Amino acid sequence: MRLLKGHGTENDFLLLPDLDGAIDLTPAMVSALCDRHAGLGADGVLRVVRSENDPDAKEMAADAPFFMDYRNADGSAVEMCGNGIRVFLRYLIASGLVVSNAAVATRGGIRRVRARGDGDVIVRMGLPRFLADRPVATAAPSLPTPATALEMPNPHVVVPVGGLDELEALDLSRPPLVEPPLPHGQNVEFVVRTGPRSLRMRVHERGVGETRSCGTGICAAAVAVAAADGVGADGQPWRVDVPGGSCEVVWHADGEVELIGPAVLVAEVEVDDAWLRAR
Amino acid sequence: MRLLKGHGTENDFLLLPDLDGAIDLTPAMVSALCDRHAGLGADGVLRVVRSENDPDAKEMAADAPFFMDYRNADGSAVEMCGNGIRVFLRYLIASGLVVSNAAVATRGGIRRVRARGDGDVIVRMGLPRFLADRPVATAAPSLPTPATALEMPNPHVVVPVGGLDELEALDLSRPPLVEPPLPHGQNVEFVVRTGPRSLRMRVHERGVGETRSCGTGICAAAVAVAAADGVGADGQPWRVDVPGGSCEVVWHADGEVELIGPAVLVAEVEVDDAWLRAR
Repeated sequence: MRLLKGHGTENDFLLLPDLDGAIDLTPAMVSALCDRHAGLGADGVLRVVRSENDPDAKEMAADAPFFMDYRNADGSAVEMCGNGIRVFLRYLIASGLVVSNAAVATRGGIRRVRARGDGDVIVRMGLPRFLADRPVATAAPSLPTPATALEMPNPHVVVPVGGLDELEALDLSRPPLVEPPLPHGQNVEFVVRTGPRSLRMRVHERGVGETRSCGTGICAAAVAVAAADGVGADGQPWRVDVPGGSCEVVWHADGEVELIGPAVLVAEVEVDDAWLRAR
Repeated sequence: MRLLKGHGTENDFLLLPDLDGAIDLTPAMVSALCDRHAGLGADGVLRVVRSENDPDAKEMAADAPFFMDYRNADGSAVEMCGNGIRVFLRYLIASGLVVSNAAVATRGGIRRVRARGDGDVIVRMGLPRFLADRPVATAAPSLPTPATALEMPNPHVVVPVGGLDELEALDLSRPPLVEPPLPHGQNVEFVVRTGPRSLRMRVHERGVGETRSCGTGICAAAVAVAAADGVGADGQPWRVDVPGGSCEVVWHADGEVELIGPAVLVAEVEVDDAWLRAR
């Protein structure tokens, strides 16, 4: 089995080219591959399939020729990933399957991605939907409330933090307390303003813990701050720094949010047959 | 650059075949390769060199034809690694460089390794040296003291723990307190007896934190318990379970300690040239 390793702002993935849809990728294989000590290690696997060759994507094949079959490290199927889809496009370009842009089928619908001249990749992430504000607390220290809740379309709560020292001091080893929690849980983004159009952020992802980056969380953070500022969807870029790097977010006048960030291919990997058979 | 990924009881390594000693492996390259999100990810890199082709191993070349040039994930050179050398032998066998055993040059001297019929690898680890007992404490809960200090030859402190629940409850997120500390710091092993000749262990490695396995720590734990029991160096196997798997330890009548455990090759890896040049 041949794969590639890549990352977007240190959200890292194993890409599994399977254009014909011939590989039966079981949850056990995914978790074995993603195990960071006993396997290769990654946040998830991105299987690359022609949409016409996968039952989950067949209906999108006319508009989106490639399907990003994204599996979390635990083997579960995931709808979309703003960092993963940039790496997905980087692979399509590197392998000559597309020139510079693509419409990609995902379980969350079709997403348009294109490479910018500087190598960064632009993803059209859809429309945010605001929910009622709600208070948030972490173990330490205490934080201002209320925080902004919104769907991107997965659920987020964005919490303003007073300064970089306070952001650094946050204990995110346990899930932040959100009252009331969103119906399906939430990712929580803690943000500090670092300039007129720039933020620094740390994120706690539901079911995972603190991560080095979260693509939808980066979008949610910029949108929440833009809304609080009153500038709203002005089509101008926000810069969002996360532990794993930096992205830009543009909230367009039509409501669409664009995420712009790096996508890196690190290596090709050929898994040992005996190892794989033993999983 | 071509490497392999492998592990021994989930202590994981990138092997870099460089028989001619032609690769200038810088600390920056090692830390970039070992980065678990932005790179490939591993606890360290094992460069495989013919001893005659490396100035650090040339004097050992007549007795030990291959040199295990071990670098920690931070890029620093390391003397020896009981888990790494098993994976090193597995690679020598898989690539046809040896049949089933080898004398391997390391910065800690020559180590003899051989594969057993069941695939596990036996490592002759040298002689333990006991130091004065000393008390140990962790953040929670409190522990019995004193603990056994010994060199294997790196420094260890072995702490008896009353039961599996207590072992599980230990907070090893910070270094355990050892008074007085050993001159160059120490790895601390917390051990529970699980049978007449079996132990379960958790380990905190100096400069790293809690790890899933530590080869010299497994040896130190078995030797400390054997000495406390009064059975001493009786040539019979001890089983030691760690979070990453299980090993056997035999303390021979001549004082030599043998570590016996698994060694797994997971995949071959070809690093992207552009990525590597940018490190």
